[in-house]
Amino acid sequence: MQQNVYKPQHPIERSANRARMLISCPDRPGIVAAVSQFLYEHGANIVSSDQYTMNPDGGMFFIRFEFDLQDLDRELPKLQEDFVRVADRFEMKWHIFRASRKKRIAIFVSKEDHCLLELLWQWQAGDLDAEIAMVISNHPDMRQLVESFGIPYHHIPVTPETKAEAERLQLEKVHEGKVDLIVLARYMQIITPRFIEYFPNRIINIHHSFLPAFVGGKPYQQAYDRGVKIIGATAHYVTEELDGGPIIEQDVQRVSHRDDVASLKRIGRNIERTVLARAVKWHLEDRIIVFQNKTVVFN
Amino acid sequence: MQQNVYKPQHPIERSANRARMLISCPDRPGIVAAVSQFLYEHGANIVSSDQYTMNPDGGMFFIRFEFDLQDLDRELPKLQEDFVRVADRFEMKWHIFRASRKKRIAIFVSKEDHCLLELLWQWQAGDLDAEIAMVISNHPDMRQLVESFGIPYHHIPVTPETKAEAERLQLEKVHEGKVDLIVLARYMQIITPRFIEYFPNRIINIHHSFLPAFVGGKPYQQAYDRGVKIIGATAHYVTEELDGGPIIEQDVQRVSHRDDVASLKRIGRNIERTVLARAVKWHLEDRIIVFQNKTVVFN
Amino acid sequence: MQQNVYKPQHPIERSANRARMLISCPDRPGIVAAVSQFLYEHGANIVSSDQYTMNPDGGMFFIRFEFDLQDLDRELPKLQEDFVRVADRFEMKWHIFRASRKKRIAIFVSKEDHCLLELLWQWQAGDLDAEIAMVISNHPDMRQLVESFGIPYHHIPVTPETKAEAERLQLEKVHEGKVDLIVLARYMQIITPRFIEYFPNRIINIHHSFLPAFVGGKPYQQAYDRGVKIIGATAHYVTEELDGGPIIEQDVQRVSHRDDVASLKRIGRNIERTVLARAVKWHLEDRIIVFQNKTVVFN
Amino acid sequence: MQQNVYKPQHPIERSANRARMLISCPDRPGIVAAVSQFLYEHGANIVSSDQYTMNPDGGMFFIRFEFDLQDLDRELPKLQEDFVRVADRFEMKWHIFRASRKKRIAIFVSKEDHCLLELLWQWQAGDLDAEIAMVISNHPDMRQLVESFGIPYHHIPVTPETKAEAERLQLEKVHEGKVDLIVLARYMQIITPRFIEYFPNRIINIHHSFLPAFVGGKPYQQAYDRGVKIIGATAHYVTEELDGGPIIEQDVQRVSHRDDVASLKRIGRNIERTVLARAVKWHLEDRIIVFQNKTVVFN
Repeated sequence: MQQNVYKPQHPIERSANRARMLISCPDRPGIVAAVSQFLYEHGANIVSSDQYTMNPDGGMFFIRFEFDLQDLDRELPKLQEDFVRVADRFEMKWHIFRASRKKRIAIFVSKEDHCLLELLWQWQAGDLDAEIAMVISNHPDMRQLVESFGIPYHHIPVTPETKAEAERLQLEKVHEGKVDLIVLARYMQIITPRFIEYFPNRIINIHHSFLPAFVGGKPYQQAYDRGVKIIGATAHYVTEELDGGPIIEQDVQRVSHRDDVASLKRIGRNIERTVLARAVKWHLEDRIIVFQNKTVVFN
Repeated sequence: MQQNVYKPQHPIERSANRARMLISCPDRPGIVAAVSQFLYEHGANIVSSDQYTMNPDGGMFFIRFEFDLQDLDRELPKLQEDFVRVADRFEMKWHIFRASRKKRIAIFVSKEDHCLLELLWQWQAGDLDAEIAMVISNHPDMRQLVESFGIPYHHIPVTPETKAEAERLQLEKVHEGKVDLIVLARYMQIITPRFIEYFPNRIINIHHSFLPAFVGGKPYQQAYDRGVKIIGATAHYVTEELDGGPIIEQDVQRVSHRDDVASLKRIGRNIERTVLARAVKWHLEDRIIVFQNKTVVFN
Repeated sequence: MQQNVYKPQHPIERSANRARMLISCPDRPGIVAAVSQFLYEHGANIVSSDQYTMNPDGGMFFIRFEFDLQDLDRELPKLQEDFVRVADRFEMKWHIFRASRKKRIAIFVSKEDHCLLELLWQWQAGDLDAEIAMVISNHPDMRQLVESFGIPYHHIPVTPETKAEAERLQLEKVHEGKVDLIVLARYMQIITPRFIEYFPNRIINIHHSFLPAFVGGKPYQQAYDRGVKIIGATAHYVTEELDGGPIIEQDVQRVSHRDDVASLKRIGRNIERTVLARAVKWHLEDRIIVFQNKTVVFN
Repeated sequence: MQQNVYKPQHPIERSANRARMLISCPDRPGIVAAVSQFLYEHGANIVSSDQYTMNPDGGMFFIRFEFDLQDLDRELPKLQEDFVRVADRFEMKWHIFRASRKKRIAIFVSKEDHCLLELLWQWQAGDLDAEIAMVISNHPDMRQLVESFGIPYHHIPVTPETKAEAERLQLEKVHEGKVDLIVLARYMQIITPRFIEYFPNRIINIHHSFLPAFVGGKPYQQAYDRGVKIIGATAHYVTEELDGGPIIEQDVQRVSHRDDVASLKRIGRNIERTVLARAVKWHLEDRIIVFQNKTVVFN
């Protein structure tokens, strides 16, 4: 444990009895009634609900509940068991998360530190409600920084020859660390389909452009060459298609002819770190449902 | 009927069977279950729900439902009658609106036309789902413009001496016109408490500043004198306190030292018309609940 | 002249003696000194100057001056003649515009009216300092609207067979009308290279996406399919490459999973009209220099 | 020197020969000509110029030049001496800054760390071109953090009784440290007029509201109570009037009824740190002229 670890200044209030429920299913009458009746009968108090129906009459139904339940830890298994009957009736995909159970994150970085720093800072400020289980990097540069936060740092070099072996090592580390979510904080290495399979919709990447403009490499150079007046960044779940996964969040900033590529990069770094932190926060708070390569974000 | 009236280009699809329900009540377990169960039993299909609980455990509960109900016009009275039992049980304030029943608007203007024009255009484009029952002005200037849209124009001059009589006439007109909502589109006259009483939370005003900065007169001059770098506008419900009613919507725009008062006004006009139109739209779509001089906006 | 034509409410103050000067040339020492000295000696008072040097040491130099000159109309020819010597010395491309000489615009439209309406409205409010010489459309729909503003409307149908003939007619009209600037306000027809040649960097188009994302047709459908969280619009000068010309202005708006294609279009219309009006305004105020398929915008 | 100090990742390119010149004076013809001619004759190449004239004909003239001059360090004294004649002729207030001479900053903090952290990170990333000479705090909490960046930390407690003595100590430290600029990064203590006199327009404060709304204490509570839909932050130079000094920069963020005071604070922290860092950056780059309690910002 290093010296300058200090306690979060703004701890998030999380009731030990707060749970979140995400449901998606084909739309039909009675879903809200069935679920809310079920929760009521099991003693749960709904404190928040947000619903989205895609194409009423024959479309899809999505809902997010937050509820409080006395003795949640003890009662939840029973409630989940009982819920299977409701879920089966409506062909639901569903999940219940305990708000007090912090998700475990592995952050992957290369040499750019701004996205990592933002995550560490927001985490330290109590704004990201997670355990940061480890940072993995193909470079040694940020070891001291990361360890000064009391977080393990794994330096796993990647070369074309050692790529497969490096990925095997990474997987070992994240499995050992019981990692729930991988965040590519400007990691700059392609993740293989085999790796992605282990973490479907659980790898968040930050792409340094307003996708789908400027897919691929050197987006700021591309933006400069095209003379755009606004640049952006995109946080998305990683799928097999490069920069093609479900978009979680995007944001932009105004630029002008005065901004050269270096200036675009400087401005862009601020967008990247903000957008990535927001996407991670929403994932941690169980606000995202992926459907057909798009996201439903309840925020 | 004038010549250049033409049909909305983008008609809003409104099912004749779509209804919206707004509820507020003290929070306690079982509300969502009771209402959604009730709707289900009456054959209604919930297509959207959005809930907000202020201070869970002892706070207030707010919810907005949209639902479809076969033969709504015929079935609604019975459903409303039956709902009284649920409402009483939870001490609800509630209202059900038929989406197909267009609200009737009276727009009050003085000499500035930009807010009026934006409302007329959005209405004509099918973006504002309302009947514009009339325009009332203390000046004759915009008669031709308004009548060219096929809308009645009432010129009711206002002087210090005729103020009371003018207001009596205005009330007569809006009552005759079965007006649901009054929009002060830069009307620039103080509305008396007596008038407000007839339309509680049903008069929307646009104030040309980012409230509560620059309350009162000449806000752009005030903004210029203070050297602010951002100006704004605020749409709010009118209450007895000048510029003090519940805020519905605000927006802002960046300005610089180069902008003199005339330039601030020019920029400001674009903010004002956008903000006012948005607030009116949300009111028309039954998205707003007022509670303790604040708004809950489900959007 | 139609009935509902009324005078601009907010006339722009334009001194009859105000001129604007745009210069671009290879960078080297002494340019600002030479030009400002020249203007001073000719009795002109510089009221605004804005300079941009692309890559100092061996790059390009761009500057915009506004100056006041007593008896501008009488003195300008002499001043321009004299300036040739300065311009030759520095290999300048340059132009001087009289602020009081309103540019003449032809607006091309198809069936969508929102961009046209915004231009008409801003023009009427005195925010667009131009003469609107005519509106040309391949449809008859907006004749009454346009003529009600006292503006000539030319209905020139376009079919695959009559395309060449239609363009010949259009050119005839804009030449007769001494048009300086053509604005494609959602015109939806491809302009041929032959036509563009007559108006290099003097045709402004609004593309309904954040270019270079979603080039080509149905951009809102494309945006919906990709699940973006922000949509935009782009105003650019028209060149031979479809949607590839120099970008003048872009803006964006946040959207969510709740927005279907119709909703994206509705939101997009507001971005389109704002962005187009801004680009046109900057062109009218001689704020734009095109260099290597990009714009330098002094604003 | 602590362990986790690492080199800026993105060093700003600053030519040793680059200078910046700020001028304000009464407007009259010939100023640009005189200055640019002067610079040209002294061998300087203007790489950027930006002018603003407040009320042409009888108003004020402001200009910022950037220029390159061979052997700047050696030549500057002579150039400054010679410029006095030009300056006197036009009654100029003027200053020339060497871009390569980093300004020295003292950051004052209390217990909130987010503004300090942003400044440290931007400084470390090479985005803030300054020497951070010291951090002064009335609390001991951030010593380790600050010292880990290799920056001296002075803990100077402040109580009502020791206020005068504390200020004396602070002044001693900043004078010893040859400090050019003081940044109040959520310092939360009133600075006395006596202290301010030593640093006129060289103390930047961040106020956690969109001034002039919510002057004084607890602005987030005030914002919550008023039910605003947008919150903001304001960076300004400190003057004797509390929260009344010249505004440098402001920014805002959208909020909703769902945000309680804690949430407003969380969102606000992100605005505060961004706005403060921007204001400090502009000051460091000599982009700001103060005139009559307002700022002219050339950016």
